[in-house]
Amino acid sequence: MPKLDLSKVPVKTGSIYPEPYASMMKGRSSLRLGEAGGLTQYGVNLVTLEPGALSSLRHWHLNEDEFVMVTAGECVLIDDQGEHPMLPGDCAAFPAGDGNGHHFVNRSDRIAQFLVVGTRAPREVATYSDVDMKVEMSGGKAVFTYRDGTRWDGPR
Amino acid sequence: MPKLDLSKVPVKTGSIYPEPYASMMKGRSSLRLGEAGGLTQYGVNLVTLEPGALSSLRHWHLNEDEFVMVTAGECVLIDDQGEHPMLPGDCAAFPAGDGNGHHFVNRSDRIAQFLVVGTRAPREVATYSDVDMKVEMSGGKAVFTYRDGTRWDGPR
Repeated sequence: MPKLDLSKVPVKTGSIYPEPYASMMKGRSSLRLGEAGGLTQYGVNLVTLEPGALSSLRHWHLNEDEFVMVTAGECVLIDDQGEHPMLPGDCAAFPAGDGNGHHFVNRSDRIAQFLVVGTRAPREVATYSDVDMKVEMSGGKAVFTYRDGTRWDGPR
Repeated sequence: MPKLDLSKVPVKTGSIYPEPYASMMKGRSSLRLGEAGGLTQYGVNLVTLEPGALSSLRHWHLNEDEFVMVTAGECVLIDDQGEHPMLPGDCAAFPAGDGNGHHFVNRSDRIAQFLVVGTRAPREVATYSDVDMKVEMSGGKAVFTYRDGTRWDGPR
């Protein structure tokens, strides 16, 4: 049925990042709500950030539009322009191909939550702003490289 | 900048429906947040329903996934299975092509708000569940017909 029972949606933790970046995602979890509701054209995740947690490495998407609405707590949006406090109801949009790397950080002492929507493009490249890494996703497979396209083999 | 100033997003009212259905949408307004943020792959609207207002005629989409999260107040999701109360944080997903006609009704005495996401397919058909009408959208143009495809010329 269309109305989702959030208590039955599995809590997803962990990260596809290679170390040492995967460990930096500790304290982040999400409910894949769109998937739970049978949607295939875009993902809709309800992300929970524990105090101190990050949403991701700072990144931008080549082919996928991204939209965020904060739903609980408070966090900080960090992008190329600096820091922007985000409270419940605050929204941010990141058009595909706009190279403004962004992520959300919870610096408060209680959990923050946001809803994030992202298109599911057949092929996607995310480029990381603060580390020399990018990832290409296609056919459900993620390949991490340096920004010059050579195989990622540890931070440099 | 990615963070949206909701106070600067134009409030959209009115309806593309022909009468008498357009008048039934009184009390509904929305902020086109995705558009305000430069997104093109899906729409993200923050919809406000005054007491008594409807989100739309009950309908389903042929090609576009739809996702809703209630953000304020309370409303009722009505679909083929009946009525489902929706409170802030409650979510519903409507996969493209699933013929389960749905809409949201505010039966409370204060405003209700929800965030709704819908893919932007190049061609879309929405079919209405309770009246003999469908609409085909392509190239920014909407053509209303009866369900049999003949030109819509008033309720029948």
